[in-house]
Amino acid sequence: MASHYPASDRTQIRRLPERGTLERAEVHAILDEGLVCHVGFATERGPVVIPTLYARDGERLYLHGSPASRMLRALARGVPVCITVTLVDALVLARSAFHHSMNYRSAVVFGRAREIGDLEEKRRALRLLVEHVVPGRNGDTRPPNDFEERYTRVLAVEIEAASAKRRSGGPKDDAEDLALPHWAGVVPLRLAAEAPVPSPDLAADVPPPPYAVAYRRPRRAG
Amino acid sequence: MASHYPASDRTQIRRLPERGTLERAEVHAILDEGLVCHVGFATERGPVVIPTLYARDGERLYLHGSPASRMLRALARGVPVCITVTLVDALVLARSAFHHSMNYRSAVVFGRAREIGDLEEKRRALRLLVEHVVPGRNGDTRPPNDFEERYTRVLAVEIEAASAKRRSGGPKDDAEDLALPHWAGVVPLRLAAEAPVPSPDLAADVPPPPYAVAYRRPRRAG
Repeated sequence: MASHYPASDRTQIRRLPERGTLERAEVHAILDEGLVCHVGFATERGPVVIPTLYARDGERLYLHGSPASRMLRALARGVPVCITVTLVDALVLARSAFHHSMNYRSAVVFGRAREIGDLEEKRRALRLLVEHVVPGRNGDTRPPNDFEERYTRVLAVEIEAASAKRRSGGPKDDAEDLALPHWAGVVPLRLAAEAPVPSPDLAADVPPPPYAVAYRRPRRAG
Repeated sequence: MASHYPASDRTQIRRLPERGTLERAEVHAILDEGLVCHVGFATERGPVVIPTLYARDGERLYLHGSPASRMLRALARGVPVCITVTLVDALVLARSAFHHSMNYRSAVVFGRAREIGDLEEKRRALRLLVEHVVPGRNGDTRPPNDFEERYTRVLAVEIEAASAKRRSGGPKDDAEDLALPHWAGVVPLRLAAEAPVPSPDLAADVPPPPYAVAYRRPRRAG
């Protein structure tokens, strides 16, 4: 498979092109680190953007939810969908208001959803969804029973086109602003986990598992 | 002004209605705590969802960017837009895979964008955008000059309809699963700031300002 997504009008990156890439590995890394995606689709009343969990399997994304979900019902018709994942890395404070910025990484994916009817694939997708959110958790849960599997709708979106953007580094002030007395630099941001809080109905002798105690999103080096 | 947004087909919340609200104060609190929004709009090639900064002024949201931004150019035509802000509060780990969930708050806003030409409103919007991201920073920056103001495109979106959703609390396992040996509870998540990193070209005697040292998003009590 080619290392880059094909160039297309949808993913053409005009603004600050040095920030954009079609590299699959970069898109995948952002999708794997993100927790929630924002799904955009057209309705009769205009565009709608809904946050939801997801999981990646190669060049496929899985979404899931209740059969009553209006989003899933709309997407299952096979309409075009845009799925965006954004990671916020830092605030960038420059001497000038104009050069303030944000360090971030984002992936924008285009495709169409189809419903997964096959039970084997559905089970696999549900496991991937749990694994995406809490790696290691599948071994410590009761798997879905027949009723739960029927009651969960699973959609797959093959990635037809995608691109990633990122900004990194410090502020880029104009030379004539460097002597201004204002502080300049970055404030790093990250999604941080606090200590796990046991359910009130949990037996006192069940310790929190390591993946809950030291929870963090996977981050590719570099 | 009414305390709630009007009910409409777009914001009707079917799935788990107890999680949804049309209350303005709830929508505003989510918009004010969020840092990045996801903007959805239709194009000839299908829906597109792009992350961007924003600021709220009453029932109006401001977006900004370069005149070369394809998103701003598309939105300035007055097409319908959906702006979604999502806050991730916790992972919810249940004994059963099925009852795994996430605590979150999200606001979904519908409207249409118009370009701000008036220089006074543009300046005000740019100040609000800085204030939204780093409260207190406007006093410590060089304000935009004429060129920078011309080179920044500012759009306003009046909130025509909006709703908020939230999930909070612990896992809701089935009674027959409570005796399973699996840990159950929540892992709280938050956007955390690390120590500010000064720009390499910053004079050594400029201390980081308090709003950068103790950076956190505003959170309404309750």
